[in-house]
Amino acid sequence: MTERRRVVRVDSGHAVERPDSLAVEEPLEIRVGGRAMSVTMRTPGHDLDLALGFLLTEGVVATPDDVIEAIACGENVVDVTTTDEAAARVIERRFYTSSSCGLCGKESIDAVRTRSPYDVAADDVVVDGGDLVSLPDKLRDAQRVFDRTGGLHAAGLFTATGEPLCLREDVGRHNAVDKVVGWAVQQRRLPLAGCVLQVSGRASFELVQKAAVAGVPVLAAVSAPSSLAVALADETGMTLAGFVRGQSFNLYSRPDRIVGSTTR
Amino acid sequence: MTERRRVVRVDSGHAVERPDSLAVEEPLEIRVGGRAMSVTMRTPGHDLDLALGFLLTEGVVATPDDVIEAIACGENVVDVTTTDEAAARVIERRFYTSSSCGLCGKESIDAVRTRSPYDVAADDVVVDGGDLVSLPDKLRDAQRVFDRTGGLHAAGLFTATGEPLCLREDVGRHNAVDKVVGWAVQQRRLPLAGCVLQVSGRASFELVQKAAVAGVPVLAAVSAPSSLAVALADETGMTLAGFVRGQSFNLYSRPDRIVGSTTR
Repeated sequence: MTERRRVVRVDSGHAVERPDSLAVEEPLEIRVGGRAMSVTMRTPGHDLDLALGFLLTEGVVATPDDVIEAIACGENVVDVTTTDEAAARVIERRFYTSSSCGLCGKESIDAVRTRSPYDVAADDVVVDGGDLVSLPDKLRDAQRVFDRTGGLHAAGLFTATGEPLCLREDVGRHNAVDKVVGWAVQQRRLPLAGCVLQVSGRASFELVQKAAVAGVPVLAAVSAPSSLAVALADETGMTLAGFVRGQSFNLYSRPDRIVGSTTR
Repeated sequence: MTERRRVVRVDSGHAVERPDSLAVEEPLEIRVGGRAMSVTMRTPGHDLDLALGFLLTEGVVATPDDVIEAIACGENVVDVTTTDEAAARVIERRFYTSSSCGLCGKESIDAVRTRSPYDVAADDVVVDGGDLVSLPDKLRDAQRVFDRTGGLHAAGLFTATGEPLCLREDVGRHNAVDKVVGWAVQQRRLPLAGCVLQVSGRASFELVQKAAVAGVPVLAAVSAPSSLAVALADETGMTLAGFVRGQSFNLYSRPDRIVGSTTR
């Protein structure tokens, strides 16, 4: 996952040449039934997870049963053979053209979203605030082993009591989440009911959507969420935590799942 | 660019409800000649810049002369009327299917890259290391005015002596750069010879590519570059600086343009 390279380090006007580690980034072409659907820049490794997670969160693969076979074809290509029904969804997506002019609010969410087959709102998991604040450190401890480059995002799936289930890294933060979701597809663990997904960066609309499509009830981010991330978390009934740092965090939606969040 | 929202703030087990600011994220549909080409999640504002920068860095628009008209059509749609030649490139892109199986190294760069019409390698700009380290603070100072959310990326275009030319923010870091490039398209300032582009995050392959297509000779990032970002900077003859923090930085390619980078 890293590549060595000699760089010129300049500090206060003094320059030295020294070796440095770079996070490896390579394109991955994701094919469905032999036809290219997408090229994504990613950190090599867990490519089948990435391809399957991508296809699930993009709404092409609806359930693990839609996947007949997933094979690596050369270094940077994964070909997924699906049911005809799933393959037809690729064509739908490719030729999709919006008929509305001037998306806004609810309508704009509808235009870009992938529907989740799971009822995230009904998930009655309860997470202790003390367990929640422990997750970023657990993610970083696991990352420290791999990431000497400072260039990788991470996503970690945990049980409600903070036991790690799956940790993945990538130069792209969406990819890190897709790799976790693809792991769940391969493990036939969907929906990810009762789980907490912790991510290293910000919470965007797309990350909330990926979590919702995988049935995750609690998404926690080290940094800020966007307005549309909060709107979608509200709509799906997901608990969204942001700025999870040290002993503190913000809850943007469904705080009732977090013990210690009752305001007085 | 921000939206107010009441959140539950939990600190060391103590919960309070308080207002918070969120970075606004909305989808923008980019159309070419009335047909949807792409939907990107972005921070509203400078939408024409974003659409034009996207079309240029994706290789659809080759020069400002390819653009006949760009109009906002409702809140979240921009329609760009181009020459027939440019419109044909959208179709090329959409039906592109790779014929190679197993991309790697040079081949993988070829598969995903947009060719730059400019000779970045020949740009003989010289930048003082002291000016280079001043850019992140200048970017943050400008950002501090707008970003109370902690959720925005920034890109700033500067002269070789550190004078700001254009600063743009977005929830997506690629969008922030596209907005700067689209500004240059509208100003007919391409190529961006003699300029430095400073970005708030990491330097990915795609950011180096966008900078190269706009003719930027020096790209500086606050965080780490990826392996493919460095490979493309090498190939195009761009100076790539990373970890620009305090009084120090790393140079990954073409250090000769930076005064004070000669090693002894």
